[in-house]
Amino acid sequence: MLIHGRHYRTIWPVAAGGDVAVIDQTRLPFEFEVRTLRSAAEAAAAIREMTVRGAPLIGVTAAYGIALAMREHADDANLQSAAAMLIATRPTAVNLRWAVARMQQVLTAMPREERAARAYAEAAAIAEEDVAACASIGQHGLAVLRSIAERSEPGRPLNVLTHCNAGWLACVDWGTALAPVYAAHAAGVPVHVYVDETRPRSQGAFLTAFELGAHGIAHTVIADNAGGHLMQHGAIDVCIVGSDRTTATGDVANKIGTYLKALAARDNGVPFYAALPLSTIDWALADGVREVPIEERSGREVTHVRGRAADGALHEVQVVAPDSPVLNPGFDVTPARLVTGIITERGVAAASRAGLATLYPEYART
Amino acid sequence: MLIHGRHYRTIWPVAAGGDVAVIDQTRLPFEFEVRTLRSAAEAAAAIREMTVRGAPLIGVTAAYGIALAMREHADDANLQSAAAMLIATRPTAVNLRWAVARMQQVLTAMPREERAARAYAEAAAIAEEDVAACASIGQHGLAVLRSIAERSEPGRPLNVLTHCNAGWLACVDWGTALAPVYAAHAAGVPVHVYVDETRPRSQGAFLTAFELGAHGIAHTVIADNAGGHLMQHGAIDVCIVGSDRTTATGDVANKIGTYLKALAARDNGVPFYAALPLSTIDWALADGVREVPIEERSGREVTHVRGRAADGALHEVQVVAPDSPVLNPGFDVTPARLVTGIITERGVAAASRAGLATLYPEYART
Repeated sequence: MLIHGRHYRTIWPVAAGGDVAVIDQTRLPFEFEVRTLRSAAEAAAAIREMTVRGAPLIGVTAAYGIALAMREHADDANLQSAAAMLIATRPTAVNLRWAVARMQQVLTAMPREERAARAYAEAAAIAEEDVAACASIGQHGLAVLRSIAERSEPGRPLNVLTHCNAGWLACVDWGTALAPVYAAHAAGVPVHVYVDETRPRSQGAFLTAFELGAHGIAHTVIADNAGGHLMQHGAIDVCIVGSDRTTATGDVANKIGTYLKALAARDNGVPFYAALPLSTIDWALADGVREVPIEERSGREVTHVRGRAADGALHEVQVVAPDSPVLNPGFDVTPARLVTGIITERGVAAASRAGLATLYPEYART
Repeated sequence: MLIHGRHYRTIWPVAAGGDVAVIDQTRLPFEFEVRTLRSAAEAAAAIREMTVRGAPLIGVTAAYGIALAMREHADDANLQSAAAMLIATRPTAVNLRWAVARMQQVLTAMPREERAARAYAEAAAIAEEDVAACASIGQHGLAVLRSIAERSEPGRPLNVLTHCNAGWLACVDWGTALAPVYAAHAAGVPVHVYVDETRPRSQGAFLTAFELGAHGIAHTVIADNAGGHLMQHGAIDVCIVGSDRTTATGDVANKIGTYLKALAARDNGVPFYAALPLSTIDWALADGVREVPIEERSGREVTHVRGRAADGALHEVQVVAPDSPVLNPGFDVTPARLVTGIITERGVAAASRAGLATLYPEYART
């Protein structure tokens, strides 16, 4: 997508077989910096320190990390140690393990002297596949947005509410939940996005607001508390969120707070969609609320906030009474009954076992 | 209530007919400071600068402001100008105007030489009436909590979720939503409170967490996004919130985000109560969502956060992408259909016209 008129992806090789560049997401939205990854160790550090974040982007970064390792030493020992180091950065990230395993499988079978070139090609292929999947989600979502826009009040933009960041910054390009928004913008459908701040890490206020603004999409940041009120007053036409894990029955595990917006959408007759690629669907799960393990994250994400001070520098300040305990569940589960539809790279399905089976017959166990 | 073992109210005369002391709520939770108000102008400044906040406390502060004015000059001109100055501090606060009008009515009828003493007595009476109303809310709420505790899992505390600050810091003592919690604690009913952070002004993380902690009530601060997830997993036994304005039909206007918690409570079979005094009931209104005007507050409350930095000083930092527009509605309306009951100084009523009429037959128009 665009950053003030120039097209970027979140990650790209600086030259064929060379270093790899990424946007430093820890500095956004206040500073835009590109960092260069020169080794597998630097790629691992970029994942660990959240220079890059978002499941698809983490996977691609790890794949390029393997390529950087192969550039250094293309032997089996280095392949294995680089893989282990990269996987250890974020132990729970499914895409990370998947991408590293794919790289290992492809490279192990090859002679050493061809591994580096093939590693770069395979990492690029993973990146291109993610871009294609997101672009396809965008087109299928565009059809959904067009049909809602046709039923909406003429003369005002389509008002979309989103939670957290499921935009291009979490992927390589386009994003998942925001792909339909970018597609609508490109197609000339007037669109405006209400962006939930998304406490405690503020990915909405920091990343979603930044990427929409930089691309030129009209948007408004709101406190997480405000969405229900806006829906009561007809200000939201549709909600679109991403998903970290989706059950075979259509339950959607996503950033904490998503469930509350789905309840408000149902209470006010606002359609609520999740946009996600195949890779987030866990075909083994049937009851999201009971079965999806919810990561409990550091309380410091609640008690401390990073922001820009009057002197222009980034500071962290404490924003909870000093001796009060905190609890910080990272995700919640929105039951399928509250989800109007699931937008995937293969089309739009009902949030149900039958609906997902229609799109993915080769995976579904009916 | 107690602050680390010592009993405080939010406001008290330093000596009979003397200066008036208040807790400086702009410094909480990081610093505890008592400020002395020596004149009506200082009382007005304390309200305007939110040294004191919360509708009942604002009313009492204004009443003492009139008393301070009468101590200076007890003539009609000074009474009128002090009243005008105090009312102008927070133009939308209903309690403020009511308290000032009551003081004017009582004092105008009296000889000048008696006005100062009577003004202090009347301000004290307003304060005592508020304390009595809150204490009564606490006792009626205690009965509700006891009956829920009897049905709950033995051996664990009763888990209450609250939103914003409707505690003693918003009143003179006890509070409204928190009065039943303090009453339960005093009665030996084990109780634990989940405290919504309450963005954008963080009254939960700052004030509710502070007052519960200082009194010795077990509590845990959570992001506003987390409550639905906790209810899905049985962690919340009951929600209790305050109210800024209540319709004759039982719709509850309260801090933005209250509605989302009421939806989650309904979806998970968790009882949801509003605790409020008669003064918040607007008998003229029947449809809260349509009729209650919702104040749109400064976007700076969303874009900037005040907190304690590593150097110990309070700093304000920017926490939204710099060029992004923001919208900041201050309140939302929870429809009566989502409210299990309304706890008032006269008892517990169904959230309906008939329910409120049972408690307040002299006000209700049936």
